[in-house]
Amino acid sequence: MEITATSVWTDLEAIRTQNPLIQNITNYVVMNNTANALLALGASPAMVHAQEEVANFVNIASALVVNIGTLSAPWVTGMEVAMQQAAYAEKPVVLDPVGVGATPYRLHTVQKLLSQSTPSVIRGNASEIKALVEHHVQSKGVDSTYSSDTAVEAATQLAREIGCVVVVSGAKDYITDGTQVLEVEGGHPLMGKVTGMGCTASALIGAFLAVNPDALPAATHAMTVMGIAGELAAAKSSGPGTLQLHFYDALYQLTLEQIEAHSRIRMLKTVD
Amino acid sequence: MEITATSVWTDLEAIRTQNPLIQNITNYVVMNNTANALLALGASPAMVHAQEEVANFVNIASALVVNIGTLSAPWVTGMEVAMQQAAYAEKPVVLDPVGVGATPYRLHTVQKLLSQSTPSVIRGNASEIKALVEHHVQSKGVDSTYSSDTAVEAATQLAREIGCVVVVSGAKDYITDGTQVLEVEGGHPLMGKVTGMGCTASALIGAFLAVNPDALPAATHAMTVMGIAGELAAAKSSGPGTLQLHFYDALYQLTLEQIEAHSRIRMLKTVD
Amino acid sequence: MEITATSVWTDLEAIRTQNPLIQNITNYVVMNNTANALLALGASPAMVHAQEEVANFVNIASALVVNIGTLSAPWVTGMEVAMQQAAYAEKPVVLDPVGVGATPYRLHTVQKLLSQSTPSVIRGNASEIKALVEHHVQSKGVDSTYSSDTAVEAATQLAREIGCVVVVSGAKDYITDGTQVLEVEGGHPLMGKVTGMGCTASALIGAFLAVNPDALPAATHAMTVMGIAGELAAAKSSGPGTLQLHFYDALYQLTLEQIEAHSRIRMLKTVD
Repeated sequence: MEITATSVWTDLEAIRTQNPLIQNITNYVVMNNTANALLALGASPAMVHAQEEVANFVNIASALVVNIGTLSAPWVTGMEVAMQQAAYAEKPVVLDPVGVGATPYRLHTVQKLLSQSTPSVIRGNASEIKALVEHHVQSKGVDSTYSSDTAVEAATQLAREIGCVVVVSGAKDYITDGTQVLEVEGGHPLMGKVTGMGCTASALIGAFLAVNPDALPAATHAMTVMGIAGELAAAKSSGPGTLQLHFYDALYQLTLEQIEAHSRIRMLKTVD
Repeated sequence: MEITATSVWTDLEAIRTQNPLIQNITNYVVMNNTANALLALGASPAMVHAQEEVANFVNIASALVVNIGTLSAPWVTGMEVAMQQAAYAEKPVVLDPVGVGATPYRLHTVQKLLSQSTPSVIRGNASEIKALVEHHVQSKGVDSTYSSDTAVEAATQLAREIGCVVVVSGAKDYITDGTQVLEVEGGHPLMGKVTGMGCTASALIGAFLAVNPDALPAATHAMTVMGIAGELAAAKSSGPGTLQLHFYDALYQLTLEQIEAHSRIRMLKTVD
Repeated sequence: MEITATSVWTDLEAIRTQNPLIQNITNYVVMNNTANALLALGASPAMVHAQEEVANFVNIASALVVNIGTLSAPWVTGMEVAMQQAAYAEKPVVLDPVGVGATPYRLHTVQKLLSQSTPSVIRGNASEIKALVEHHVQSKGVDSTYSSDTAVEAATQLAREIGCVVVVSGAKDYITDGTQVLEVEGGHPLMGKVTGMGCTASALIGAFLAVNPDALPAATHAMTVMGIAGELAAAKSSGPGTLQLHFYDALYQLTLEQIEAHSRIRMLKTVD
């Protein structure tokens, strides 16, 4: 399918009409943000992580988002069970490997999850995506220390190895299935001063996957909406505090006209 | 007692004067919202869940609010201990059975809690209340798929079976002790686009129970305040992001005049 | 070193330039606030608590902040391991003993942590600091029931016993190393109606310690910035909801001129 402002809008309208149920196993820091962003977008969020119920919930959800931001052993078990059930039930899965290069525990957890099932989309910043490919990058905590540009190759390589779509988010976002690479320009530097904007992007990808099974356009649509809502919010904000609120309002109010005026998606290249 | 704008105000003033300590065992998503709403109302919130300290804390708290939104085994243990201690110490308890119809684990947990002790108030949306009565409703995650109207019967039945007050919140809220049914009109559709508004309502009920031992008026007062603060906030907001903030401000500033102008409480019926 | 508006600014600029990585093991209620406040200040926050990775993370962090607000056994283990690794790796540590007087479990946990390693700074409200000294104060939940004035003696005593800097926050803040006592006037009463402002203060102290190894001025600088940002935010706010957002904006925008105009730091006394 062609990826344009119109295709972004088509998916957004589908989310607003269908209110897909998005299951999140995510970190404590961003649960509230993620839920509010999904609600503002038009989806129906649920945070369900316990191994006792996680598989039952996958069966009624339309997509699963797994985020390793505040990891501990019981949560890893929940992630494993949920991702395997999602694979079995053919539900789309987004994996957000927060700070994967920062500790061996994070790297090993992600490696274990990826050895058991294959997500539809992996979204991270450049450091995280490179760490997954290189297995030896020393990350500076959960923030990015590599530019996105140098990570496009890593993303393409990862997408091929895993067999999924990989999103590298940054000043420009790159979305690849290992063959095609799309670039989405958008957002605002102030977004980096609000916690959980990356995690929110992953959650929005989950919502788009729930209405569009084609992961490359779905992820590209999500990143486009994320960037435009951020830009519109930043224009009204005097700092990161007010930005976060205007971001939800912008998501909630987003129109086709705004998407047409602000979307900057381009096919970067097609790798053979 | 007669339930009017004046009785709402009397309880609200008591909360503002006494700053009752409200213990919450609640979900990760809404802890911050709940704490901020209780502070804005005039109460003193505390989030304490570990089995090692939960009973000690019940003894110094004025009310306990238990919310199963993000359940796991250690938290269920904390809930059991706390609710039993609250029964022993004669402290009022609010139970919020978030998404109880969504998984067997949630249903079994609530059934276990209810078999061990009786809360003062159960508050849920129509799906949750119906699931508790029917034990076989397939809920769509944590959001409501039944209208409140059809749930009044379920609420009345549940109130009689359990021997507590039941609140069904929705576009209109219904509060019943199994005999009388009160209706509270208020709120704004935009509130449904902010996560945790239902959980916040449950927490506010806890604060009202702390100053008013009569659960039917206390719960009705809380739902009235919730609705009015939501209406006032929505009038100033351009979306769900700004609504959440204005909601706290409205709670904090709420006056007798505003309550008199906006409260729409009526005795719906008295069931024999 | 002399503690003035200029020295506050020097540290703030160092934070904005170096973006130090601050590891937080903190409570569920305030994780989002804390992360946003650290980002707005210019630091790089990370929430990492699992025993499997907590020590690895200490090694790459510039400071560790431990907050016992929502305690449970696995988290206590994480705190123990992290604080001992921080002592070994000579990383500064802030300990926030939230509600320490409210339950034996909290008191015993803090006693255990303090028996294993010594933090650089302990920050609490007057009740918490007194509870630590007296071991028998009955706290009213997590809020303060003692005035800060009567707690200065307790803070001085605690600072000497533990061998660290102690901060008592309240309408006026007091910062002492057991010999010198500094007073910081600032803030706004509305800050008490927003959850987690004390926890945020502890996190900011962590950021200042990351750029200034001298704990007495570092903690004083942090409390000064906290108070000024709160005052500036309150001036723009109509209640606690809007205050929280303007607080982040104020932190983000804080200028030398604002610090010079609003800082009220004085050396209260030097105890022999």
